[in-house]
Amino acid sequence: MVLAIAESERVRGITSPNPPVGCVILDESGKAAGFGGTQPVGGPHAEVMALKEAGVKAQGGTAVVTLEPCSHYGRTPPCTEALIEAGIKHVIHAVSDPNPRAAGGADRLAKAGITVESGLLATEVSRGPLRAWLHYMRTGRPHVTWKYAASLDGRIAASDGTSQWISSETSRKEVHEMRAKLDAIIVGTGTVRKDDPALTARDADGMPLPRQPLPVVVGMSDLPVGAKLQDTALHLRTHHPDDVLTALVEQGVVDVLLEGGPTLAGAFWRAGRIDRVLAYIAPALLGDGPAAVLGAGVSTITDAVRLTVQDVTMSGPDVRISAVPEN
Amino acid sequence: MVLAIAESERVRGITSPNPPVGCVILDESGKAAGFGGTQPVGGPHAEVMALKEAGVKAQGGTAVVTLEPCSHYGRTPPCTEALIEAGIKHVIHAVSDPNPRAAGGADRLAKAGITVESGLLATEVSRGPLRAWLHYMRTGRPHVTWKYAASLDGRIAASDGTSQWISSETSRKEVHEMRAKLDAIIVGTGTVRKDDPALTARDADGMPLPRQPLPVVVGMSDLPVGAKLQDTALHLRTHHPDDVLTALVEQGVVDVLLEGGPTLAGAFWRAGRIDRVLAYIAPALLGDGPAAVLGAGVSTITDAVRLTVQDVTMSGPDVRISAVPEN
Ligand SMILES: NC(=O)c1ccc[n+]([C@@H]2O[C@H](COP(=O)([O-])OP(=O)(O)OC[C@H]3O[C@@H](n4cnc5c(N)ncnc54)[C@H](OP(=O)(O)O)[C@@H]3O)[C@@H](O)[C@H]2O)c1
Ligand SMILES: NC(=O)c1ccc[n+]([C@@H]2O[C@H](COP(=O)([O-])OP(=O)(O)OC[C@H]3O[C@@H](n4cnc5c(N)ncnc54)[C@H](OP(=O)(O)O)[C@@H]3O)[C@@H](O)[C@H]2O)c1
Repeated sequence: MVLAIAESERVRGITSPNPPVGCVILDESGKAAGFGGTQPVGGPHAEVMALKEAGVKAQGGTAVVTLEPCSHYGRTPPCTEALIEAGIKHVIHAVSDPNPRAAGGADRLAKAGITVESGLLATEVSRGPLRAWLHYMRTGRPHVTWKYAASLDGRIAASDGTSQWISSETSRKEVHEMRAKLDAIIVGTGTVRKDDPALTARDADGMPLPRQPLPVVVGMSDLPVGAKLQDTALHLRTHHPDDVLTALVEQGVVDVLLEGGPTLAGAFWRAGRIDRVLAYIAPALLGDGPAAVLGAGVSTITDAVRLTVQDVTMSGPDVRISAVPEN
Repeated sequence: MVLAIAESERVRGITSPNPPVGCVILDESGKAAGFGGTQPVGGPHAEVMALKEAGVKAQGGTAVVTLEPCSHYGRTPPCTEALIEAGIKHVIHAVSDPNPRAAGGADRLAKAGITVESGLLATEVSRGPLRAWLHYMRTGRPHVTWKYAASLDGRIAASDGTSQWISSETSRKEVHEMRAKLDAIIVGTGTVRKDDPALTARDADGMPLPRQPLPVVVGMSDLPVGAKLQDTALHLRTHHPDDVLTALVEQGVVDVLLEGGPTLAGAFWRAGRIDRVLAYIAPALLGDGPAAVLGAGVSTITDAVRLTVQDVTMSGPDVRISAVPEN
C-alpha cells in the first residue's frame, strides 16, 4: 500500500476532479508486477494503468489500490471489470468509494469470486493523497488549505507590509513543491498590490515545474497594471468565499491553497470554509505588523475557534504546523 | 551523568546564586554508592552530599558531576579537597567552571593523582540545569526566559483582553512545574490590572508547590487595591529592563521567567535582554487581539530579529517551541 500511495502522490495535481489514485499489481507469488496512477480526466484509471504494466503476470495476483475500484461506466469503463478480466484474485484497498455512482465496486468484485479487503492504511490515504477529493465528494466544495508564514510573534508581514521571505528557503521550496500538486492558489487583491506574486510552482533554480496550479485573485479592484498575475490569473470580483468555491468547482478544481492575506483568510474563516491550516512559523520576531488573520469575529477567549494539531515538523529552521478545525 | 543531571534538576530553584549541581559517586566496581545535589547557599555542595551518602564506598571510586568541582574556599571548603580525602580516583564532569575564583579544580585534582575527564553530556547540562547559571557567570545578569501562550494566529489575548486559558491544561501544568524551579517571575502592571495573576507555582489541585519563585511586577503605576500580588510581589517602579535585572541580582536571582505582557516583552527585546523564548502555541484562532510582543522596533522584514529553534514538542494539544536569539 505504501507503494500505491507513492503512485497516487505522483499523479496528484493532474487528475482533478477525479481522485489521484495509486495502484500496485502483485503477481501470484506476491512480487510487484505493475504500477499505475490515475491519468488526467478521460484517461485510464490507476488500476488499468497498473494492469497494463503487469500484463499476464496479473493472472491470479493481487491489486493493492488506495481507493475502492469503481464499478460504473463513466468516461472510462469500470475498473472492476478490468480487474476481473485480468484474472485478479485479491483486491486490497485503503478507502471505500463515497461516490454513490461509483460505489459498489467491492460487491461487484466479491460476486466475481475475488476476495476484497478494505481499510489498509486508510488514515494515511484519507489524510494524504485523497484528502481533498474525499472532502469534495462529501461537501461538493473544493478542499481549502490555508497556508501562511508567520514570525514567532504571529506577524505575517513587517509594519511596512513587506512579507516575502519571512520563512526559510527550505519552507519556500516545500511550498513550491506543494503548489505543483494543487489545482488552484488563491490570494486577495491586497496581496497582489503588496507582493506582486507570480503564484507559480518553481524549482530551486527558479524554473517553472511541469505542473502549474490555476492562480486566482479575489477582490473588486483591478490588478495593478503590469502585475505578474494580470494575464495569468482568474480574477473573481466578489467578497464571498462560496462564490469563489463555486467558480472553482466549475473549473474542475478540487484541491485549493489559500495563500492569504489576512483579510481574505478572515473572510474564509467567518464562512467556515477553511479545511486545514498549514502554518510555517519562522523563528523570528517582528514586534509590529499584521497578524495572520483579520476579523475572524472572535472577541473573547472562550469563543476562540479551536483546532486540532495533526502534524508538527521542522522545515529547515522553521516549525511547520498542520491543524484542522474541530467540529 | 544522566543520574547526576537528575540530581541537579531536583535542586533547581533552591541553590541560586550558586549553581544547581548534581553528583553521583560510583564505588570501585562502578556501582552507584551516593547521590547529591547542591544545598541552599551556605550548605554543602553536590559532591559533599554524594560523598556523605557513599561513605567508605567512595574509596577508589569515581565522582560523576555536572560541573567541574570547585577548588576555592568560599562559604564552604573546596570540593576538590573532599574528593581527594575520600580517596576518589576518577572524576568525570560535564562542564568546566567558568568562575575564575572557583576554576582550577580539574588541575588541583590531577595534581593529586586523580584522572579527570570533562565534556560528558556538556550540551545537555549547559542547555539544561546549568543554563541560567552559566549565563549569569558570563554576563553578570540573570538568565531571562520569555514565556507566552499564543493562538495559532499569534494573539496572546482576545480583543477584550481576556487571555487566561489560551493554552491547555497540560501546558499550564508544565508552566507551574517550571515556576517551582525558578528564582523569579516578572510581569508588567498591565498584566496585573488585566489578569490579576498570583504567579505562584501550584499543583493540579491548585495547592502551592513547596518552592515558590519571587513574583516581580514592573511599572510606575500602583497595583489595583486587592490585587493578588499586592502583598507578595517585589514592585519595581522602572521601565528599564536593566534596572529590573540589577535589582534581581541583589536578591540572589539567577533564573528568571518573563511572563509578559507584550509591552514589557517589547522593552526586554529592545534592550537585548531575552535569552530564550518559550512559546506555547495553542491550536486556536482569535482573529483579533494583541500580538505577543509590542514595539520590538522592527519595521521591515530584513530587520527581523532572528532566532534558532532548539526544541519543539507537543504539550497536550499545544505546540511548545523553545528558541534562542542568534548573535
Ligand atoms: N506571510 C504570509 O503568509 C502572507 C501571505 C499573503 C499576504 N501577506 C501579506 O498580507 C498583506 C496584505 O494583506 P491584505 O489583507 O490586504 O491581503 P488580501 O487578503 O490578499 O487582500 C485583501 C483584499 O481582498 C479583497 N477581499 C476579498 N474578499 C473580501 C472580504 N470578504 N472582505 C473584505 N475584502 C475582501 C478586498 O479587495 P477589494 O478591495 O479589491 O475588493 C481586500 O482589499 C501584505 O502585507 C502581504 O505581504 C502575507
Ligand atoms: N498569553 C500570554 O502569555 C499573556 C501573558 C501576559 C499578559 N497577557 C495579556 O497581555 C495584556 C496586557 O498587556 P500589557 O502590554 O499591558 O502588559 P504588561 O507588559 O505586563 O504591562 C505593561 C505595563 O508595563 C509597564 N512597563 C514596564 N516597562 C515598560 C516600558 N519599557 N515601556 C512601557 N511600559 C513599561 C507599564 O506600566 P506603568 O504604566 O505602570 O509604568 C506598562 O503599562 C493582557 O490582555 C493580558 O491578558 C498575555
